[in-house]
Amino acid sequence: MKKVALVGYGYWGPNLLRNYIELPGAWVQWVCDSRPEALAKARSRYPAVAGTTDYNEVLGDKDVDAVVLATPISTHFPLAKEALLAGKHVFVEKPMTGSTADAVELVNLARERRLTLMVGHTFVFSPPVRKVKSIIDSGELGEILFVTSSRVNLGLHQKDVSVVWDLAPHDLSILHYWLDETPNSVSVAGRACINPGIPDVAFINLRFPSGVLAELQVAWLSPVKLRRTIVVGSKKMLLYDDTESVEKVKLFDHGVDFKDPETFGEYQLSYRTGDIVSPKIAGTEPLLIEATHFLECLDTGARPITDGLAGLAVVASLEAADYSLHHQGCIQTIDTGTTGS
Amino acid sequence: MKKVALVGYGYWGPNLLRNYIELPGAWVQWVCDSRPEALAKARSRYPAVAGTTDYNEVLGDKDVDAVVLATPISTHFPLAKEALLAGKHVFVEKPMTGSTADAVELVNLARERRLTLMVGHTFVFSPPVRKVKSIIDSGELGEILFVTSSRVNLGLHQKDVSVVWDLAPHDLSILHYWLDETPNSVSVAGRACINPGIPDVAFINLRFPSGVLAELQVAWLSPVKLRRTIVVGSKKMLLYDDTESVEKVKLFDHGVDFKDPETFGEYQLSYRTGDIVSPKIAGTEPLLIEATHFLECLDTGARPITDGLAGLAVVASLEAADYSLHHQGCIQTIDTGTTGS
Amino acid sequence: MKKVALVGYGYWGPNLLRNYIELPGAWVQWVCDSRPEALAKARSRYPAVAGTTDYNEVLGDKDVDAVVLATPISTHFPLAKEALLAGKHVFVEKPMTGSTADAVELVNLARERRLTLMVGHTFVFSPPVRKVKSIIDSGELGEILFVTSSRVNLGLHQKDVSVVWDLAPHDLSILHYWLDETPNSVSVAGRACINPGIPDVAFINLRFPSGVLAELQVAWLSPVKLRRTIVVGSKKMLLYDDTESVEKVKLFDHGVDFKDPETFGEYQLSYRTGDIVSPKIAGTEPLLIEATHFLECLDTGARPITDGLAGLAVVASLEAADYSLHHQGCIQTIDTGTTGS
Amino acid sequence: MKKVALVGYGYWGPNLLRNYIELPGAWVQWVCDSRPEALAKARSRYPAVAGTTDYNEVLGDKDVDAVVLATPISTHFPLAKEALLAGKHVFVEKPMTGSTADAVELVNLARERRLTLMVGHTFVFSPPVRKVKSIIDSGELGEILFVTSSRVNLGLHQKDVSVVWDLAPHDLSILHYWLDETPNSVSVAGRACINPGIPDVAFINLRFPSGVLAELQVAWLSPVKLRRTIVVGSKKMLLYDDTESVEKVKLFDHGVDFKDPETFGEYQLSYRTGDIVSPKIAGTEPLLIEATHFLECLDTGARPITDGLAGLAVVASLEAADYSLHHQGCIQTIDTGTTGS
Repeated sequence: MKKVALVGYGYWGPNLLRNYIELPGAWVQWVCDSRPEALAKARSRYPAVAGTTDYNEVLGDKDVDAVVLATPISTHFPLAKEALLAGKHVFVEKPMTGSTADAVELVNLARERRLTLMVGHTFVFSPPVRKVKSIIDSGELGEILFVTSSRVNLGLHQKDVSVVWDLAPHDLSILHYWLDETPNSVSVAGRACINPGIPDVAFINLRFPSGVLAELQVAWLSPVKLRRTIVVGSKKMLLYDDTESVEKVKLFDHGVDFKDPETFGEYQLSYRTGDIVSPKIAGTEPLLIEATHFLECLDTGARPITDGLAGLAVVASLEAADYSLHHQGCIQTIDTGTTGS
Repeated sequence: MKKVALVGYGYWGPNLLRNYIELPGAWVQWVCDSRPEALAKARSRYPAVAGTTDYNEVLGDKDVDAVVLATPISTHFPLAKEALLAGKHVFVEKPMTGSTADAVELVNLARERRLTLMVGHTFVFSPPVRKVKSIIDSGELGEILFVTSSRVNLGLHQKDVSVVWDLAPHDLSILHYWLDETPNSVSVAGRACINPGIPDVAFINLRFPSGVLAELQVAWLSPVKLRRTIVVGSKKMLLYDDTESVEKVKLFDHGVDFKDPETFGEYQLSYRTGDIVSPKIAGTEPLLIEATHFLECLDTGARPITDGLAGLAVVASLEAADYSLHHQGCIQTIDTGTTGS
Repeated sequence: MKKVALVGYGYWGPNLLRNYIELPGAWVQWVCDSRPEALAKARSRYPAVAGTTDYNEVLGDKDVDAVVLATPISTHFPLAKEALLAGKHVFVEKPMTGSTADAVELVNLARERRLTLMVGHTFVFSPPVRKVKSIIDSGELGEILFVTSSRVNLGLHQKDVSVVWDLAPHDLSILHYWLDETPNSVSVAGRACINPGIPDVAFINLRFPSGVLAELQVAWLSPVKLRRTIVVGSKKMLLYDDTESVEKVKLFDHGVDFKDPETFGEYQLSYRTGDIVSPKIAGTEPLLIEATHFLECLDTGARPITDGLAGLAVVASLEAADYSLHHQGCIQTIDTGTTGS
Repeated sequence: MKKVALVGYGYWGPNLLRNYIELPGAWVQWVCDSRPEALAKARSRYPAVAGTTDYNEVLGDKDVDAVVLATPISTHFPLAKEALLAGKHVFVEKPMTGSTADAVELVNLARERRLTLMVGHTFVFSPPVRKVKSIIDSGELGEILFVTSSRVNLGLHQKDVSVVWDLAPHDLSILHYWLDETPNSVSVAGRACINPGIPDVAFINLRFPSGVLAELQVAWLSPVKLRRTIVVGSKKMLLYDDTESVEKVKLFDHGVDFKDPETFGEYQLSYRTGDIVSPKIAGTEPLLIEATHFLECLDTGARPITDGLAGLAVVASLEAADYSLHHQGCIQTIDTGTTGS
């Protein structure tokens, strides 16, 4: 039984708390939030959990094995660092930090102290994303050629960070996971439509060492909510649509054909696809799988799938993307600042 | 009654022929194609139409008022130039030419000779595209902020031109028409996945003088066929999906909201959109409207909506896009090479 | 503050408990279930709520104002009757009872004792169903002509009751609410495909006094989950699709046209619909609205929208439908056994 | 080369003419229509085809092998009978006749004269319907349990026949073909909403000898066009949606599960389906396959798939359905009036 403390009970914290409360292997010792009314809310629902506004009280509690940080991005680095220095394992929400340098420091610190550092890239634990990973790894798609992704919302804006920092961590962590590589370079075109200085729409082009080209659309402003990723391989293609309730992943045969100017076909309607298969996917909540994974890593000392290096790779990609976004879409090299694990 | 000659009876020619045959104001005098078997095919369907493999025979026929060119792109310029020099009005399929310089020459030639030069940007004549134009012009969307478009196919490749020259003319002509402006600059990331040297997927970023940012996805290789354009304005947004049989255009209210880190909302599912309206759109075939417009311009001498300058703007955008595509996605200025009409 | 006791913590009880726990005007005094492990589950989540396996303990608690029954159908009548006899207000899940006679007895008992009797026809409290009600009442649809509904599942069967008793209460309560009338007669064709003697698919035809014809499809066995209701009126039509996340309700203009054998139209593709409008609908959880309504009725003494008579009308329709289902689809008169309120 | 005469150039005739004109094995000798303006329309498109308003001229032409009848239903019987008596093979549009007695007479006449009699049940020749047939015959679905079908339009009404005679022939011919049996009995609930006396919405319940239960919804008045058929078998289920452009047929695994009142699942979202497969289906035009089949039968003397008996079975089902529709939805026995082939 691992004793954890949840820090931050705002937008996302309640989801984490609910899952850790119901996990047999965890005991939630503390909920910590600087706002007393947030604590009151948490404790009205779970009266058995102790509340505090003082982070030091949490870190000073020798029974606490790990802290789970669900606070604003700007606080991730200092809170995680303090926790590691206090000998606590750390689970921190995505993105891990606000800068590559901070991310490197956390990675090194965790390594030196032999503590577990895991990042909440939840989609990596979602059943459809894992299904796609297993399809890619099986070679069924052939060589991956390009990826497109649309993650656009109906109007929920952030006041402090750009849409790149808000939404792109999902797609970056998914792509890094699927492709087992970090992009070499990125260029971004975007615009701040509503709040001056805070881009709310961005088109992100990524180049991977393997040659994969990826294009991510992220926006807070769209008439329709889209969560649609297309992966085109040399043998097959797939569509992952997270807004679909049943057919989240669909596999398609290739349909390469050439428009021959010498033939006399009238307006060609043929669809040269073969069978389309939508594999069965479990309905398990990703957060539950993620929390279970964190506890297992605490027990076994194994490195989490979304460990500090995975978090660092996402932060480095975000930093380069943000630089390009603010420098006329220049092509920016991505540097993770480390020489491997 | 205008007498027209159709030149080129390959992929697209039969559609043009069918429409001109059925138009009361036109008489199809000739079908011309260098391949006798193409002519035979055309004449088996329409025995009353004369056929020839000799373009000069067409140009030498004094009864012919106009030529309609549906030949490969590389032949557009020489065939159109000869026709204008022979005093014929010209309708030429998109893209008008393979280079900006050629396009400028045709525009100037038509102007000097006071001949009608029209380009087959068919989508400009499609009822849903016109409906969107009228919505934009009415101010209902407010200031246009950004546009995204996906035009991806299931596998029908071209052997000679890139996907940019094949598919982007549609989106460029639509955007120029909707926004009444030509983009300042373009950058393109793409890849030649199937045929070396012939990019078959491209992501095109456009910046317009008004500040509009546009992103066009074009690909020959996709698991699903997409014809989806999103226009986001400062007041409303719209979705134009040409694959929808009934609700091709949908209008959405804005839903700007801010994710407040101080509130205690659990995972927020609220969709802050207002009513959604899908206006009624006529089902008329765009080609018929296009052909009718060409005949009217011949009768009245009016300048076509998709005149030579419109064709030139598309060619100039394509040329700049192609340059960027082959130069690491550099940001390329678009120069239409003219100083207005 | 009303004190309530939840009786039955199986499939549906947890949803009721969560809502009553979070309602400011209610205090959950007891959770009662004959199975100790069900109680343990409830109390691990809400330690502050007392648990008992003894229904008499609940009825004997003078502090309890109302019982909320979420037990198997066959127990609804005896438990509700005992509660009313003990002077408690009663909220009982749908269907109210297993027979019309029992339903009449509960209605009469509640009336005599001046106690509130409400039935959990949750859909009547769902925002899209209420939106449709307001559209119908506004006269926008004109005279209602016919209704079709498909409520089919992917394979979740019941062991004890037919699909008619399991799924049709939803559609019947919705129709009674929308149309303000109870059908005169019903005929049902069905089949027991999986479990002999337990029909799992049924097609229910209803005739209403106003002339409305309704057809309800209910099935436990379907390749796709459907929650689709179509209401056709003399002026407009609407589609209510509860599986849609955004456009749950859509309003359509009429498109009456006549296929004239004298015209020469080729295969007619025209869709004669006008604009299509999808009104904004609030995302509030129906159970919360339902529970709030119950508390308000307790406070004010008002008759609930889904009162005992509404529950009785559904039971009478179900009983007649079941009779027809087991008698070769005969047309069965629906008799609510009362002479009005 | 078979010489055929098309009789009736109204709504459907042009589609037949186009296909027979382009078939290598057929020569269209005549187009016959009592309306001179219809003939003029046909001949402006196909000047090589002779036109006549006199049916006897067609029947008297010894070169004519077969007549293709696309005239109003009420004329099918007399025109087909005359043609058979004149020694011509007959292709007649669906439904074959307006009464079972007439259908029997045509079947007998064709048999006596050893002439081919084929009915235009076009859907039987449509690739998705044939795909479903092959899936059913392969046993992949197991025993067929029930079928539902929705064939509803957006508002195109007929003035002379009910919606049952207009739309149900499609579903009946498809079901007869798939199941290799004719229903024993039928009951129909319907309503004449727009034109008094002409029902425009009907719900048709069919019982087949094998135990299959089928429910067909047909309507001229609907907010959405539906062409959706669900076939549920004891092993698998399938969905055939003819309005889908790509995934017209989808195969689903079974998902039978029991709602156990003893478990403590909260609101159950699990979808117990396995993989979903959408097989590749050819895009060939059904009319072309149908016309080719007719010519082959003329050449070989083989009995058409949609021969006179198939046409008779549909007419008998329609007649019984119509009787039920006008007699309070009584259960009506279907009698094909023959004792087999």
